[in-house]
Amino acid sequence: MTKNIDFYFDFISPYTYLGHKRIQNEGNGINFIYKPILLGGLHKLWNITPQAYIEPKKKFMISDCEMVSKKFKIDFKFNSNFPINTIKLMRGCLILDEDQLKKYINLVFEDYWKNDKDLTNTDVLSKILNKIEINLDEFFKKIESNEVKEKLKKLTNDAFKKNIFGAPTYVVNDKNFWGQDRFEYAIEEFKSIF
Amino acid sequence: MTKNIDFYFDFISPYTYLGHKRIQNEGNGINFIYKPILLGGLHKLWNITPQAYIEPKKKFMISDCEMVSKKFKIDFKFNSNFPINTIKLMRGCLILDEDQLKKYINLVFEDYWKNDKDLTNTDVLSKILNKIEINLDEFFKKIESNEVKEKLKKLTNDAFKKNIFGAPTYVVNDKNFWGQDRFEYAIEEFKSIF
Repeated sequence: MTKNIDFYFDFISPYTYLGHKRIQNEGNGINFIYKPILLGGLHKLWNITPQAYIEPKKKFMISDCEMVSKKFKIDFKFNSNFPINTIKLMRGCLILDEDQLKKYINLVFEDYWKNDKDLTNTDVLSKILNKIEINLDEFFKKIESNEVKEKLKKLTNDAFKKNIFGAPTYVVNDKNFWGQDRFEYAIEEFKSIF
Repeated sequence: MTKNIDFYFDFISPYTYLGHKRIQNEGNGINFIYKPILLGGLHKLWNITPQAYIEPKKKFMISDCEMVSKKFKIDFKFNSNFPINTIKLMRGCLILDEDQLKKYINLVFEDYWKNDKDLTNTDVLSKILNKIEINLDEFFKKIESNEVKEKLKKLTNDAFKKNIFGAPTYVVNDKNFWGQDRFEYAIEEFKSIF
């Protein structure tokens, strides 16, 4: 039993951005451990078609995210470049120190789901990396190492083994809570235990 | 613009049962129009794999429904006979008068999602029909008519044309709200208009 809530995330997911912002706004006093995964890889492991590939669900998701973000007073704009391949961005989470990582996660999330930036553009990424004092070349060299590639695969596989199938997923004491809609339930579970 | 909320439902869906109970408990003063659809048919039209056929999602759904039902103080038991083919039960919605229909919907929902009954068993169905004073043979004869069969197909197709892809879906003023989680949002939309 550990005194924290695990937060499984991938930048690709707008609901996960909302979940991330709700942690920042409402998660006071609880330690959230951010767990990077590749959502596309996880969906493949489960043979799940992502919501974004089912036309009416994608359409609903856009208006739904706008609705939810308004309710929780979160700045949000559905990204014009959606979906993108986030594998490099997710690998980036594995090469940073704790302080850099925290900033990087927030900057990437905000550029993608608040500032409508194209994160496949290296200029955009470069600006983020400058803010955490890491060089673009160094970043790309590190994320292309086999060790980092294998680590992201392993983290995604670990999530799969824990019956996680979507993002965001909150895990409290081995109990999975899927979706930003279940944030309150995860908090309640946490408070009932600790 | 009509002064009501449409509620698209199929007895097969546990979340729709929860949505139905929340209408009964919290829907005071708003007129909900119940719209029968065949969810399996709707999923086929969209080429959507139902949550119940994706093992980890089904597993999550069971614990999630229990969690949500507790939060909203709704008696709930995940049915031992899930899933079943609800086509006959849904056709039944199309042959009853208004008073019978209201009782029938609630009785079927409760037997399936509260009383853990096997609704493919004609004895179980018979007891429900007795309560609304309709004879089992008459019921079966009526639901097997081509007119009724075509009507359920048409209603499901109409939902498809309105971009509805799941249940429950609340529709307020042509805006779709998917999932019992969006009940409050539908109510807010309704109140902002009327």
